[in-house]
Amino acid sequence: MQAITQNSFGGPDVLTLTEVPRPDPGPTEVLVRMRATSVNPVELFVRSGAFPMIGPPPFILGWDVSGVVEAVDPGVSRFAVGDEVYGMPYFPKAAGAYAEYVVAPSRQLAHKPAKLSHVEAAGLPLVGLTAWQALVDVAGVRAGQRVLIHGAGGGLGHVAVQVAKHLGAEVIGTASAGKHEFLRELGADQLIDYRETDFTEAVRDVDVVLEPIGGDYAVRSFSVLRPGGLLVTAVERTNTALPGLARQHGVRAAAVAVEPDHVGLEHLADLVDAGSLRVHVGATFPLAEAARAHEHVAAGGVQGKTVLTM
Amino acid sequence: MQAITQNSFGGPDVLTLTEVPRPDPGPTEVLVRMRATSVNPVELFVRSGAFPMIGPPPFILGWDVSGVVEAVDPGVSRFAVGDEVYGMPYFPKAAGAYAEYVVAPSRQLAHKPAKLSHVEAAGLPLVGLTAWQALVDVAGVRAGQRVLIHGAGGGLGHVAVQVAKHLGAEVIGTASAGKHEFLRELGADQLIDYRETDFTEAVRDVDVVLEPIGGDYAVRSFSVLRPGGLLVTAVERTNTALPGLARQHGVRAAAVAVEPDHVGLEHLADLVDAGSLRVHVGATFPLAEAARAHEHVAAGGVQGKTVLTM
Repeated sequence: MQAITQNSFGGPDVLTLTEVPRPDPGPTEVLVRMRATSVNPVELFVRSGAFPMIGPPPFILGWDVSGVVEAVDPGVSRFAVGDEVYGMPYFPKAAGAYAEYVVAPSRQLAHKPAKLSHVEAAGLPLVGLTAWQALVDVAGVRAGQRVLIHGAGGGLGHVAVQVAKHLGAEVIGTASAGKHEFLRELGADQLIDYRETDFTEAVRDVDVVLEPIGGDYAVRSFSVLRPGGLLVTAVERTNTALPGLARQHGVRAAAVAVEPDHVGLEHLADLVDAGSLRVHVGATFPLAEAARAHEHVAAGGVQGKTVLTM
Repeated sequence: MQAITQNSFGGPDVLTLTEVPRPDPGPTEVLVRMRATSVNPVELFVRSGAFPMIGPPPFILGWDVSGVVEAVDPGVSRFAVGDEVYGMPYFPKAAGAYAEYVVAPSRQLAHKPAKLSHVEAAGLPLVGLTAWQALVDVAGVRAGQRVLIHGAGGGLGHVAVQVAKHLGAEVIGTASAGKHEFLRELGADQLIDYRETDFTEAVRDVDVVLEPIGGDYAVRSFSVLRPGGLLVTAVERTNTALPGLARQHGVRAAAVAVEPDHVGLEHLADLVDAGSLRVHVGATFPLAEAARAHEHVAAGGVQGKTVLTM
């Protein structure tokens, strides 16, 4: 099969289309004929070596899966050959989705939402599970709470806006002005153009902040939280000083590290098929152009998801 | 930390108590101070090389975990230091539970059932998830159905009897006579001493058979099923002729390959704490005597679970 491999850490140019053996499904596993995967910012850091969480090259990047079941291990009964599935296998210890075929344990996949194309479905698993685990499992967002989502127009952000609305929250987003109309259509109640306005002066009394940006966004967000409010960071996982700093401001801070979970995938698929969640794909590239897709994501300002097609 | 390692495939004597580095929790992971693990028959085959699913030695065997959270990765919010947890991490591609510490993704663990000691809880994950996935997910057992469980007095069997009773089934078990009283206490409705009676002559019109024994038990069980009934094998996963043979008999056959799943663990913990499920530990050995524990399991006839304590 063809896959994007890399033989060293480095820039996008290390990503190379290569002929590699097709994986075989082992016990509990499903072989998926990939139709699409997506590029998540974390993959840029794994590629470069800044976050070498799957060890040294060679390896195949990628965790988002959307495709068709080609074969199943005999002990698998959740899926049959021909089923359309999506999911996020083996995060974070292994990868492999920038490829024509991928294997995954059956409980790291779910049936693809019927309302999504493979291109759209490939954009959902990693960001959808992150949003669900951050807002539902970590923050326990309840109806009527005020939720601020930074980077609301991006891959994680635009899904998080919709999950927070589904939970009944009042949603405030930071995003560049060009994405405001898009975000209003998704249900955002208040939007802040971070280029024009300091969000710390435009919003207050927030119950939960979700920040997928890093840098000083986490600490600057403390002042917009109500006393006891919660900041959830999707990127500052290793900043162990954050909870202590939050306490000094009378608020709380937690990190979310996304995990594979068929239950979360099933919840997200239900939301999609109920019309409460859609996935915006801002750009697609053929698998062979994975390097260009990484450059596109690295340039920033992406609206929604960036998808690779097979 | 101390762990049982092996440097070659072989008999129980390859299992050696060794000083090895304590694992560090990576992203999504929890470090558990182990209190107990259990010996499952599959581990005897992995040890010997008959089923080399975690690759060649050296490795640390073991998947069942019961212990206390010692540390968590900063991105984990499901557990805090000091929580009592149980689970089955990284099955089947990695192992590591015959050790004083183990790391596991947070969603492959759940809170330990309050009513179980660590020794008892260590006996539940692999067999409990197998029983749940076989009877609920694969077979969809409903109230009033007749379920035959082979090897009902063993580790998997005695848990499966209780799960089937919880589902409202009429439960028939095969077991040696010495285990019948034990199984009646667990709710079994009819018991067959396989040493005295050919089960194919003693039972019929069964909706679901669960067989964790192998050999000819699967094929012989076809005749006790009602037309369209389902055999689920927990061991004959690679016998790909089974579904075709079943069709010739007018019945169905499926294999179950157990998978990590926090949702299954949470269901099982709820059953335990509601008084509907208990774990019988037939023998315990200190970790250093893992070889003796393997000999004990290999000898057969074990009632309930065999547990290693740390």
